[in-house]
Amino acid sequence: MSNAAATTTTTTKSDDITFRYATRDDLPAIVTLLADDEKGKTREELGDPLPDAYYAAFDAMASQSTDALPNKYLLALQGTDIVGCLQLTLIAGLSRRGQLRAQIEGVRVASRTRGQKIGEKLIKQSISISKSLGAALIQFTTDKTRKDAHRFYERLGFVASHEGMKMALDPK
Amino acid sequence: MSNAAATTTTTTKSDDITFRYATRDDLPAIVTLLADDEKGKTREELGDPLPDAYYAAFDAMASQSTDALPNKYLLALQGTDIVGCLQLTLIAGLSRRGQLRAQIEGVRVASRTRGQKIGEKLIKQSISISKSLGAALIQFTTDKTRKDAHRFYERLGFVASHEGMKMALDPK
Repeated sequence: MSNAAATTTTTTKSDDITFRYATRDDLPAIVTLLADDEKGKTREELGDPLPDAYYAAFDAMASQSTDALPNKYLLALQGTDIVGCLQLTLIAGLSRRGQLRAQIEGVRVASRTRGQKIGEKLIKQSISISKSLGAALIQFTTDKTRKDAHRFYERLGFVASHEGMKMALDPK
Repeated sequence: MSNAAATTTTTTKSDDITFRYATRDDLPAIVTLLADDEKGKTREELGDPLPDAYYAAFDAMASQSTDALPNKYLLALQGTDIVGCLQLTLIAGLSRRGQLRAQIEGVRVASRTRGQKIGEKLIKQSISISKSLGAALIQFTTDKTRKDAHRFYERLGFVASHEGMKMALDPK
């Protein structure tokens, strides 16, 4: 995941990217990706074995996931290497005539494979899946300091029409 | 729901507000609330009977809802009158060490009962429920044109730290 690797290990063409949903066995690779990011590196906790909290969270995602309304991690692969991920959640709701929404979160591309449009392909794949499931809107929030990310998403057709408001909670 | 009603029908004190989750029978009242809003009035479709799309969406919400991870409408009541609502969705995820998030959507207070802090009580109730379910973050997006709403939420402790990006989809 180091930048040094970018110059030595990237030989697979970007059009060889394939996609699949994550299984529990993919968790160490996913958390490595989540931590391979300026903000993510301070937020995640790698370890061998991985902290139980990640496995519990994966199982919680599975418990609320159905084929029609998934809450799953979508993976981008080069061969068998996991080089990108995002969380895709379909959320049923009543507003806008019962509009089904898709939501993405935790978008990451391995730093060693940047510049190959893997992020773009991953987002487009999540849009394609969301449409096929009947979603009429796809949304996410992105930290206001990630200016490069905003330009990337605007190029793909997203509009920064909303404020993304958050409050940290201290769970009981 | 008209402004005229505000001066004639409001006799219940604001501290009489109670809360419960919505049932299917509450749908006409909820959609009436969703439409009782400057933006909502163009987005919703009232009718007797209510369009089937709302019932289908309610059932879809129920299909992905568990006691631990609800995707439900929370209602505020004065006596038996439904005077406020919001959609509360608990979303399991891997990022930030498997942090559980709460998300709100479709926040409305009946125009005839505004000025009674019902919106504030409803948001605080959703925060309380989210904490009790283990959420470490509560989030939502709000249209950038709703400046009054932003001040309201900032007073309650939310921070507009993120861009809320959206793209309309044309479902397949």
